[in-house]
Amino acid sequence: MSDIVILAVGGNALAPAGGGEYRAVEGRARGLARTAVSLLADNAQLIIVHGNGPQVGALALAQESVASYVPPQPLFVLSAMTQGQLGQLISQALDTELGRSGRAETAAALVTHVIVAADDPALSRPTKPIGPFFSEGRARRLADARGWSVAEDAGRGWRRVVPSPQPVDIVEIETIKELVRGGRVVIACGGGGVPMARDGNKLRGVEAVIDKDFAAALLGERVGASTLLLLTGVDQVSLHYGSMEEQRAIDTMTVAEARAWIDEGHFPAGSMGPKVSAAARFVEASDRQALITSLKAAPEALAGLAGTRVVA
Amino acid sequence: MSDIVILAVGGNALAPAGGGEYRAVEGRARGLARTAVSLLADNAQLIIVHGNGPQVGALALAQESVASYVPPQPLFVLSAMTQGQLGQLISQALDTELGRSGRAETAAALVTHVIVAADDPALSRPTKPIGPFFSEGRARRLADARGWSVAEDAGRGWRRVVPSPQPVDIVEIETIKELVRGGRVVIACGGGGVPMARDGNKLRGVEAVIDKDFAAALLGERVGASTLLLLTGVDQVSLHYGSMEEQRAIDTMTVAEARAWIDEGHFPAGSMGPKVSAAARFVEASDRQALITSLKAAPEALAGLAGTRVVA
Repeated sequence: MSDIVILAVGGNALAPAGGGEYRAVEGRARGLARTAVSLLADNAQLIIVHGNGPQVGALALAQESVASYVPPQPLFVLSAMTQGQLGQLISQALDTELGRSGRAETAAALVTHVIVAADDPALSRPTKPIGPFFSEGRARRLADARGWSVAEDAGRGWRRVVPSPQPVDIVEIETIKELVRGGRVVIACGGGGVPMARDGNKLRGVEAVIDKDFAAALLGERVGASTLLLLTGVDQVSLHYGSMEEQRAIDTMTVAEARAWIDEGHFPAGSMGPKVSAAARFVEASDRQALITSLKAAPEALAGLAGTRVVA
Repeated sequence: MSDIVILAVGGNALAPAGGGEYRAVEGRARGLARTAVSLLADNAQLIIVHGNGPQVGALALAQESVASYVPPQPLFVLSAMTQGQLGQLISQALDTELGRSGRAETAAALVTHVIVAADDPALSRPTKPIGPFFSEGRARRLADARGWSVAEDAGRGWRRVVPSPQPVDIVEIETIKELVRGGRVVIACGGGGVPMARDGNKLRGVEAVIDKDFAAALLGERVGASTLLLLTGVDQVSLHYGSMEEQRAIDTMTVAEARAWIDEGHFPAGSMGPKVSAAARFVEASDRQALITSLKAAPEALAGLAGTRVVA
């Protein structure tokens, strides 16, 4: 298990904020699968971690609308549902591409629980946006009616926000390692993993959504991955992002630079911030590399020719 | 892999037709896990196949109510969601029980695709009830409004019905075998598996729900299971079920007897019929045994002291 790549892809790379028509969603999964399979070419093994923001938000909306006759399920159950939903989507697309490329690997999507600390201060501070965008007025009315927290999301509109604690352990880690050893392209820790807290000998579900980039960083550390590859909407991380004069794309940054730039507020909390932070955490823990780039530039980034590289 | 037990449990054993409050659902999963772990005692390995009738129906209802702003997903995607939902529920409960019993196994819930024949005549004949019960009038109005097929379900009310084709192959079968060999209690083929048809080199989703007992029978055959254990609401299969005078519980039946009694109409189509039929199919294909019994009587049935045994 010397050359494992962890590929983390956002839920919004698979569907828009509202959820998405299945045909469009399937097309996006095919694109992801094509790139993912191309990354396997050099004898690397692959684990895919997907997000679930749009999907879990859509499920939450849907179930609340029928709450009077179908009991609503907790948020962590909805995350588990999205592991099934996107696990099947991605594994089906991967199997098609793997077959077409004549590769021996097959896909395996594993339902994954991720442990968080019961006293994580993030649990009382909802920050992670999920589900569709609303106008401020509608968002505030929904917040009142349904007990949600809502917030403005990176200039794009208002959304429901939920707590996003740090992942500290992965329940199914040994199974994931075995599946990788067995020649599977594994889909694991979907949506950041189903969040659980230890309660004596038992695990209990936690009403939160773990950031999938942090879950991917932890997973990468635990399986000894060589590269953590975090996909985003742009080819490279930039300083002064959005400023015509000052914006500057970064080819390589050290962990120390990453931390300094985070502190200086270069990366928005809801988007690039957690990615740079997760990349830094992985590199620090593993002494290997992290890459932040777009799906399209991912193969070049892995070859050292594109993207933003985070190193020790 | 000489002593594998396939345990098939209905979605309605985990939640009532409407979906169920999570706390109640969790309690039922604990009960299932306790019994399942007790079956492991004699060095048997275990694969659990769950149904998803109530859960997939609840999801279908919920998503249709928000269809104007969240695109509805196909039925097979909803089945995949229930694999995540019930896979996490059962694996969490199993891990707790396994830990408490000091056993080395851990649970692994795998997203599973099951192949059906594109020309299966069942695809044009909706028979499988899913979701909540309605009055006849409400059911007919919903059928008109939403393009559903509806039917009366075993004297208990009206429900939506969907096609239920026969499973012919399991995409992830090698992964399931590896997980069992690796000491996992595997949860697979949930809800009968996500139904797929071959379309050249590709798989495409099929708008249907595969009967989980038939999927369990096929899985049992493919992994070389020693026992197919189909759970139901009663301890034994009966002839003339419901007749005060003639009802007679069956301890053991041969495949030939099972088929004759099915033909004579002893077992209702929506409930005991598919179970007896799936049991007969497994025994015929494998020359091993099938058991039909309740969760409570399952350990005794496996010891040959309760339940209905189907033999060659």
